[in-house]
Amino acid sequence: MSQIKELQLKLAEFAKEQDWEQFHTPKNLTMALSGEVGELTEIFQWLTDEQSFNLNNKQTSALNEELADVFLYLIRLADVTGVDLLKASEEKLQKNALKYPIEKCFGNAKKYTEFK
Amino acid sequence: MSQIKELQLKLAEFAKEQDWEQFHTPKNLTMALSGEVGELTEIFQWLTDEQSFNLNNKQTSALNEELADVFLYLIRLADVTGVDLLKASEEKLQKNALKYPIEKCFGNAKKYTEFK
Amino acid sequence: MSQIKELQLKLAEFAKEQDWEQFHTPKNLTMALSGEVGELTEIFQWLTDEQSFNLNNKQTSALNEELADVFLYLIRLADVTGVDLLKASEEKLQKNALKYPIEKCFGNAKKYTEFK
Amino acid sequence: MSQIKELQLKLAEFAKEQDWEQFHTPKNLTMALSGEVGELTEIFQWLTDEQSFNLNNKQTSALNEELADVFLYLIRLADVTGVDLLKASEEKLQKNALKYPIEKCFGNAKKYTEFK
Repeated sequence: MSQIKELQLKLAEFAKEQDWEQFHTPKNLTMALSGEVGELTEIFQWLTDEQSFNLNNKQTSALNEELADVFLYLIRLADVTGVDLLKASEEKLQKNALKYPIEKCFGNAKKYTEFK
Repeated sequence: MSQIKELQLKLAEFAKEQDWEQFHTPKNLTMALSGEVGELTEIFQWLTDEQSFNLNNKQTSALNEELADVFLYLIRLADVTGVDLLKASEEKLQKNALKYPIEKCFGNAKKYTEFK
Repeated sequence: MSQIKELQLKLAEFAKEQDWEQFHTPKNLTMALSGEVGELTEIFQWLTDEQSFNLNNKQTSALNEELADVFLYLIRLADVTGVDLLKASEEKLQKNALKYPIEKCFGNAKKYTEFK
Repeated sequence: MSQIKELQLKLAEFAKEQDWEQFHTPKNLTMALSGEVGELTEIFQWLTDEQSFNLNNKQTSALNEELADVFLYLIRLADVTGVDLLKASEEKLQKNALKYPIEKCFGNAKKYTEFK
């Protein structure tokens, strides 16, 4: 069993034990995910790019926690909607490889921004 | 090697080939993640909870794509910041188990909302 | 002078007094706005539509504060980027009136979702 | 009548004409606002701070449109929840003046980040 599936089962069991399944609709979980990304954003909002690579202990601890929160809501949302995250991601990577051929896109900020 | 690590290596290689590493700062990747969560949110914003469980083909296809985008930026961000997503998530789950003891939190919307 | 302009001047003065202008780049302010919308989202994430119309005192107080935070970062961002919010909004309203003719769009959830 | 109130009345009338009031719950409008902030974020995600001050015509046009969208959903949300945006913002400014006394907070990135 994949490590993601294992975590999803733990989350599903925890939600069931707490009788929280009623709250875990796709719509609500999307909002919860969005809220956690907001907290992640707050870590970096006033930092320069360079500072964002050199977090202090307190910021690193917050980063670990927020990334975990985002990940947990993401895989819970994928679980309740029946989406296979790894499969969907592999398909997306193949799409991107076609969309951004290296010879056309190599290292140009302007192109990058426009293509995205 | 975990499936997440495999995907992270593919993403790192793709970024290197395209000379996109310069754009992949923690700050920028957080914004990119946030933008994708915005697109995910747009799928559900006008739907009822019931509708959010019963997406049509077009919505399901969009959901697969947006969840993949969120996941890919999330694991790329974890990679460039050196965060172990699975480890951080396991630690968070243990924290939550202590924070939300079943006998105290069972199935109460009001409590749920206040606690979160 | 419009009330928005008055507030923008106060914010500009406050930023100057604190020597915070260096942090108030369009990029950073967009992240700050995004972080505040995350906090706003957390108020509503587990509520039903009905509950979202009937907030208790604590939730109402949080709502007032988060809407203010979103508004203040929004007008500060508009100020530093030189965007006239009221003018841009009037133009958007005119665009929408053309985009959503009443005879075509009246009250259909499916159309609404697809059009948006 | 304030310019915000005038815009709110136009939006309310437009929603009524289209029979869209049923979709404009506080919860849904918060998601719509969040989605628009996601689109705003996408404008700036790969730009440096310097570039974020020097947008090209296409980016400026997108910025005007996204700021308008954010503003319109924000004031619509304030309207349906009965929040007076200007009053709430004035109160927030007074709170901030107390929270960030100049002599304590002047121009220090570290303090700024920690205080926020």
